[in-house]
Amino acid sequence: MQERKITLTEKEIPENWYNIVADMPNKPLPPLHPGTKEPIGPEALAPLFPMELIKQEVSAEKWVAIPEEVRDVYSMWRPTPLYRAHNLEKMLDTPAKIYYKYEGVSPSGSHKPNTAVAQAFYNKQEGVKRITTETGAGQWGSALSFACNLFDIECEVYMVKISYHQKPYRKLMMNTWGAKVFASPTDQTDAGRKILAENPDSPGSLGIAISEAVERAAKDEQTKYSLGSVLNHVLMHQTIIGQEALVQMEKAGDLPDIVVAPFGGGSNFAGLAFPFLRLNFDEGKNIRCIASEPSSCPKLTRGIFRYDFGDTVGMTPLLPMYTLGHNFVPAPIHAGGLRYHGAGVVVSQLLKDNYIEAVAHDQLECFEAGVAFARAEGIIPAPEANHAVATVFREAKKAKEEGVSKTILFNLCGHGNFDMKAYEDYFAGKLVKHEVTAEEIQASLAGLDTPVIG
Amino acid sequence: MQERKITLTEKEIPENWYNIVADMPNKPLPPLHPGTKEPIGPEALAPLFPMELIKQEVSAEKWVAIPEEVRDVYSMWRPTPLYRAHNLEKMLDTPAKIYYKYEGVSPSGSHKPNTAVAQAFYNKQEGVKRITTETGAGQWGSALSFACNLFDIECEVYMVKISYHQKPYRKLMMNTWGAKVFASPTDQTDAGRKILAENPDSPGSLGIAISEAVERAAKDEQTKYSLGSVLNHVLMHQTIIGQEALVQMEKAGDLPDIVVAPFGGGSNFAGLAFPFLRLNFDEGKNIRCIASEPSSCPKLTRGIFRYDFGDTVGMTPLLPMYTLGHNFVPAPIHAGGLRYHGAGVVVSQLLKDNYIEAVAHDQLECFEAGVAFARAEGIIPAPEANHAVATVFREAKKAKEEGVSKTILFNLCGHGNFDMKAYEDYFAGKLVKHEVTAEEIQASLAGLDTPVIG
Repeated sequence: MQERKITLTEKEIPENWYNIVADMPNKPLPPLHPGTKEPIGPEALAPLFPMELIKQEVSAEKWVAIPEEVRDVYSMWRPTPLYRAHNLEKMLDTPAKIYYKYEGVSPSGSHKPNTAVAQAFYNKQEGVKRITTETGAGQWGSALSFACNLFDIECEVYMVKISYHQKPYRKLMMNTWGAKVFASPTDQTDAGRKILAENPDSPGSLGIAISEAVERAAKDEQTKYSLGSVLNHVLMHQTIIGQEALVQMEKAGDLPDIVVAPFGGGSNFAGLAFPFLRLNFDEGKNIRCIASEPSSCPKLTRGIFRYDFGDTVGMTPLLPMYTLGHNFVPAPIHAGGLRYHGAGVVVSQLLKDNYIEAVAHDQLECFEAGVAFARAEGIIPAPEANHAVATVFREAKKAKEEGVSKTILFNLCGHGNFDMKAYEDYFAGKLVKHEVTAEEIQASLAGLDTPVIG
Repeated sequence: MQERKITLTEKEIPENWYNIVADMPNKPLPPLHPGTKEPIGPEALAPLFPMELIKQEVSAEKWVAIPEEVRDVYSMWRPTPLYRAHNLEKMLDTPAKIYYKYEGVSPSGSHKPNTAVAQAFYNKQEGVKRITTETGAGQWGSALSFACNLFDIECEVYMVKISYHQKPYRKLMMNTWGAKVFASPTDQTDAGRKILAENPDSPGSLGIAISEAVERAAKDEQTKYSLGSVLNHVLMHQTIIGQEALVQMEKAGDLPDIVVAPFGGGSNFAGLAFPFLRLNFDEGKNIRCIASEPSSCPKLTRGIFRYDFGDTVGMTPLLPMYTLGHNFVPAPIHAGGLRYHGAGVVVSQLLKDNYIEAVAHDQLECFEAGVAFARAEGIIPAPEANHAVATVFREAKKAKEEGVSKTILFNLCGHGNFDMKAYEDYFAGKLVKHEVTAEEIQASLAGLDTPVIG
């Protein structure tokens, strides 16, 4: 019997997160004030985040100790299994060896609780009573609801109204863990009321939901705000994934030539890839790390590196990132977690400096790969995860054509149990190609009056 | 950091299933022909099942070797974790130690693939091209679809029409693994056409779906039929759960005083409990094994021990079992997997002989316990699993009142990701108590003209 799963014990849960900023030859550029466009310091974030997370956001320490309380909660589902994809290799008839790290074993079904738990813990430490956030597809809102419940913090989730109605089961999952979920825009914030006054039937958007969640936190001293990707501390918390995978690959007596992960704001990719990039920095290894993005929202492969806002409305600090422009509206693909106009600052700098690669896939290619994966390996992937699967299929075929055995590792970041509607649409032939035209990208970027990076 | 999960490696996947029949002081009574009411032998089952499964059905061997090919597929998700429920113990403020075996990590999300994989394997061995089955809530249909896909066997699932429309995601899961799913009654079988002629708007029932699946298999030499519970071989395949749990409890340095599992047809309960009952038989231990059933379908606690049909229509052999009568129609509770009028033969005999216990819970008590469990332990249980959780809550409270530390182990047989509608109804106050009246049971049993057991 061939071994499929390389597992670790709870004692082997890593004791540190890895902060890649310490190893980056070019450090990230500073954020700018949205009004003055001057560099801002960490204190500007104090109304929204607890101090410990702000410290992590600007830290240049290579290792940050994971608190015992956080490791204890991690042990509810971590260490997660690393799979050798024997069935998939056979199906693809490839000389490549394929491994995947499976994050879908968490209670909310994705990698998101890795940072949600850490964020809830630090908020609790500083006496925060309530955390607000936004959610689109619901993966992030679920994870934060789960985490807040464990630390006895109230959780308020502003869920994009159209998703609220389309994905009632995600909302119910949050309710089961005790969170309050609002269909955004609501009449409970100035931002929401303004939108509703203009358009009572507004279906909402992630931009509006962010505005509501941020306003709520900014106006109440005991309430803070939480973000599920993009920021440095969020990316760092996710490195628990790659830290475990490193040990597991070692146990398997192997080292990846290629590491692949889906790309939304960057935390999914950073989580698996950064600990392997460290080997490139520290040990002169040459591991290719590939970010898989949707061709309907191709900021890494077709965006520009420029200062831009994190939200649609333009309230957040300006961040130096690969962006399609903060007004870019991606097609309504099912991989909701990847429909974001910009990339996290750290990942953007790494791409700019050619330390990582990016590739884009159309949703049809992704679902074709996802269904084939499910039939080979059993697990039905989340639509976001299908992007990584599609990249792996391409690389495995290339290995076959070239007759070389590559070792490929990818992040199976979550299961598709709450996304079966997406598979229904795929089987029914309702999914179409969403290739963005050069004119659309041009038009979105033309409107930007944010600072250019010299 | 306290250890939460007791895990095993793939090498520790048990090599044998345990056949409790070998240890039963009173062996199960024989099935009777539905027409002649004379005892029938295994050959009567040949049109529906492959020979190897029929042999297992009537086997008195204590151990049956698990084929390497089946263990290989098991390794896709097995061994499953055994959890020490630290958070739950704290929440219940009980001196009891609570453990649970979590079967929701399987690709289809429940314990059902344990037998589905074995059944698909033996069918493949004997050249079977197609397997038919019925499904209600969808757990069983999903598991068989998953298993047939891996062994390259066609799978046809007759899904009760009302469930087909209410649970489209379960259907899509089966489709993703390549199965054909029909809304039963269909116009493709005599049984279905007959029902449709009488009532074109029939919502279907498990009884009708069984008739369709059986007819399809009986009429085609290359097609066999598969059942997800009740039969001896199905219960035996599930003992993989308890076999693993035995080793894990030993690793934890503990032995349960009480073992609890939900009860539908018996395979869930048998899976966890039989290997512990073996310790009672072999080593004189005194482990209490409690079956948790819904008070809306209380065959174990309020039914009679008598020969009855396995299906509603009366086509199957007569089986000696605890039953509410094959015409009993349970209330439409969300725990669809527990809505069956009878109990498996082996479990019935064990209950009759006082080797096991049974307890019934109303659905409100079950969901209250399930939500509390989700908030303590993170995992949202399937409605079926909530019955075991409710029993555990009762026993943990009793331990507290009596001031004694009991060790309780239960089967968390699946997650609730596809059952969030049930939680929605619970939160909305739409669930009502379904206590069956004595008159209702009386009326259902009064119609029986099946042989009485002396």
